[in-house]
Parts: sequence; C-alpha cells; structure tokens
Amino acid sequence: MSRIPTSPEHPTAEIQFRVRYCECDPMQVAYHGSYVPWCEMARTELLRQQDAVYRDLEAVGIYFVVARMSMRFRRPARYDDVLTVRVEALRSHGVKVEHIYEVWREQELLATAETTLACVDAAGNLRPVPEAMLQSDA
Amino acid sequence: MSRIPTSPEHPTAEIQFRVRYCECDPMQVAYHGSYVPWCEMARTELLRQQDAVYRDLEAVGIYFVVARMSMRFRRPARYDDVLTVRVEALRSHGVKVEHIYEVWREQELLATAETTLACVDAAGNLRPVPEAMLQSDA
Amino acid sequence: MSRIPTSPEHPTAEIQFRVRYCECDPMQVAYHGSYVPWCEMARTELLRQQDAVYRDLEAVGIYFVVARMSMRFRRPARYDDVLTVRVEALRSHGVKVEHIYEVWREQELLATAETTLACVDAAGNLRPVPEAMLQSDA
Amino acid sequence: MSRIPTSPEHPTAEIQFRVRYCECDPMQVAYHGSYVPWCEMARTELLRQQDAVYRDLEAVGIYFVVARMSMRFRRPARYDDVLTVRVEALRSHGVKVEHIYEVWREQELLATAETTLACVDAAGNLRPVPEAMLQSDA
Repeated sequence: MSRIPTSPEHPTAEIQFRVRYCECDPMQVAYHGSYVPWCEMARTELLRQQDAVYRDLEAVGIYFVVARMSMRFRRPARYDDVLTVRVEALRSHGVKVEHIYEVWREQELLATAETTLACVDAAGNLRPVPEAMLQSDA
Repeated sequence: MSRIPTSPEHPTAEIQFRVRYCECDPMQVAYHGSYVPWCEMARTELLRQQDAVYRDLEAVGIYFVVARMSMRFRRPARYDDVLTVRVEALRSHGVKVEHIYEVWREQELLATAETTLACVDAAGNLRPVPEAMLQSDA
Repeated sequence: MSRIPTSPEHPTAEIQFRVRYCECDPMQVAYHGSYVPWCEMARTELLRQQDAVYRDLEAVGIYFVVARMSMRFRRPARYDDVLTVRVEALRSHGVKVEHIYEVWREQELLATAETTLACVDAAGNLRPVPEAMLQSDA
Repeated sequence: MSRIPTSPEHPTAEIQFRVRYCECDPMQVAYHGSYVPWCEMARTELLRQQDAVYRDLEAVGIYFVVARMSMRFRRPARYDDVLTVRVEALRSHGVKVEHIYEVWREQELLATAETTLACVDAAGNLRPVPEAMLQSDA
C-alpha cells in the first residue's frame, strides 16, 4: 500500500482508526491539526513494537519532544472515514529521532508528514536516545 | 447581562474570546465539547481575581479535579463569534468547590453549565480547599 | 462488566480505544473534556448497529444536536490506558433521544455520563426522531 | 520584537492570548499540536485587517485549505503563559497564499511556522485567490 521503500533497518508500524466528528471542521473535512495526534498515535505503536512503551520511558525520566514537524495535505479526510497511518523510523542518532508518516484511506494517500524528535531528561536537557532505539542511518 | 443573582459573597469573573475555527464542527456551529475549556478559562480568571493563580497552586501541590460537570445548550455559537463566559463560585466548603457558568453572545444566552471540583494533593487524595477560597454557603 | 440493567428494548454498543497523549493534561490524567468525544464515538457505533450511519443521516438533512450533557468523574484515566465506553439508548420519543454512558478500564468504572440529543433539520428546526430510532420508554 | 524583516508589501498581524490548561500535555508544556490553531487565529486576524472576514468568504463560497504546514519548536510554552503570535503574508499569487509565523513569550521566540494555503470553491476545486488578497512576491 505504501510507497515508502522499506528495509529491515527501518522499523515501521501502522494504526487504523475512524475520523471523529469533533476532528472535522465547518468545511466538513478533517481539520488539518487533527493529523498531529494521528501521527503521534502511530509513533506510540511503533515504540510499543520496539518493546519500549512511551509511558514507561517517561516514568524513568526519558522524554521525547517534537523539535520539527512538517505536513503535506493532498486530499481531505471526512468524518467516519477509516484511515491508516503508517510510520517509519527513518534515522535515530545522537539525541534525535526522525520519523516519516503516510495517512491513507484505502488506496488513496491523503497526507504525508515528517517529524524530528529530541530526547530530553526530566529537566528538559538533551540526552542520548536510548540504545534500543538507536540505528545507524540506512 | 446575566440573570444569575449576584451577591458580595459570590465571587464572579468574566472572559471574552472569539470562537476558533477548529472549535466548530461539520454542522458549522461550535462543537459542544468546546464549551468545556471555555468554562475552565473563566474559572482560571476567577482564581486570578482571588489572588490565587492555578499554576502556582499546582506548584505547591494543590490541585483541583473536576468531579461533576453538566451543561445545557440553548443556541449554537458560530466561528468567529465573540463570546462572554461568566462564572460564579457558588459554594466552597470542605474539599469541594461549586461553580456555575453562562455563555453569552451579546444579549443572547447560549449555554449554562455547572461544575463541582474536588481539591486533591499531588497523590490524588482529597484535601481541604485553601482557606482563601473558602466561603460559607450564601 | 456493566451495572446498567440491560433490556431488549434498550440498544447498547461498546467501543474500545487507547487514551491519546494529547488527551491528557499537566496533572498527567485524561483531561475531563476528552470524555466528550469518547461518548460521541460510542453513540456513533450504536447508530451504526441500528443500521443508521450518522454521516448518512446528515446527508439527508437529519441532524442531532446535544441539548444537555452531564458527566461524573470517579477515577482518572491515564495516557495509553485501554478504555471501554458503553452506551445505552435510554429513551427516544418525539424530538429527543437520551443516552447513558459508562467509561471502564477493565473492571474499574472511571466515569458515567448522560446526554439528551434533539433532532433537527438543516435549518436547525426541531423535527421528529427517525422512526427506526424511536422506542417507547421501557 | 520580531526578526522577520517587514515591508509595506507584506501585511502582518498579531494576536495575544493565554495558554489554556487543556492545551498542555503530561510533560507540563503546551502540546505541539496546540500551535496549529494559534497560527490559524493569527491568520484570521490578518484577514480581518485586510477587510476580508474568513467567515464571510466562506459564505460566498471561497475557502482556504492548508496544503502544507511546517513548524519548528525552540522552547516550550507553559500553562497560563501570555503568548504573542505574529503572522506575515509572505506571498500570494495564483491559487496559493504563503504565511510565516512566530510565537513569542515576551522577548523569547518559542516557535516558528510556515503554511501554504490553497484557495478552493465549495466543490473543492482550485480557484484564484480573491483580488484584494493578491500581492506580487516582494
């Protein structure tokens, strides 16, 4: 379904969900800001597949903050649509992790996104990404 | 403007703001869930007038959690409308504080609400409402 | 799981989902306003089971607006918790439909809610609830 | 306050508001998705200064949809902070309008953003940006 070339070094995850009524705006399509938590939900699932639950990371003082985010919207999503968000961990090195995302409605690509997360401690200072999540750039 | 009988014992506050685009739904009116933060914003202002800033209360381990909330919606609000929310601290005794709210667009009453907050410590245990916010039922 | 007495006359539905990060607040629990769309999502599923898809109803000019809503919060939900919301159509007669809701985390009841919806046409005027959704009070 | 070089050809606007409690996340800072409506609110004000009220544009069948959005987060905002968002209409030509944004807390630049909007009609087809909003690239 996705055009992202996959490789064993690049972990991926997918989530499926229905567009909520409150996520749509007076133009009767999903509000563009609604895509932000959708990407985050996919990222949470990816972490879970890597045996790292974000809630547990926070409990031991490891946080990820979004440093950059960009999105491109191609076609609108509508209320009650079933969407799939696919996330791929593109690179993680040093204190940063990069992800790319695709939002699909069946065979239609609705939107793409990229984020850069920075790893910080409880005081907000940069710290290395945990070993288990590190990969060399592939 | 308000039909709530005021009394010196009942502190009140008002806020004014514009309805955001993302707060409206495909029916082209403000989503009913949008009224929840509006009431909270008015409550924050009321605290500020009582020389208690909620952010500072949390910093010293005093939290308020919403235990009950009820709302009645009479007329719809629309995108870009300028609304006024008026809050009144109805009663505060023991571990609870009760507030009532009115949402107005000029002379039109759009909605009313009531909340009961419980005062808790950082561990989530009930604790007395701070002295400065206590009043006998009037 | 639920303490709501069920009866054949009262249609019910359940949804399951994970609490999103953005649905939680600085107190590190689900924001009380987050429960509003959760109840709505359960209601959407109930309609679907009654062979009425809300999106299709809107397409033919039948809308439901929330006239009243009340919620009671017993225990906090946390980020990444798997919750179940159970909805029951309590009564529907004339131009109104009443629903009750329970929010569970496994065997723990976290919150209860009630809503009254009014059925309106595209112009916002009250109109009878569609026959298929009508029931006598049981 | 801003480092954006201003020019008479580039209309700008500013809004000021307090960070809402529900806009903050368990990390006790403003959720990154919260910046999306903040930028939109500034854009709405800019339109108002150009004698074009977005609500009125929609009423005559002129809509703007977000085609691209990118944000860079430098420092966190916190609950109850008073923030200023400054928007500048960078370019508008053909069917597109580009804006840049800065989010400030007093003298601290917290975030920057860019959006590209596409002008569409009620059917979602691209249409020229209204004359009054057109500028040559400066």
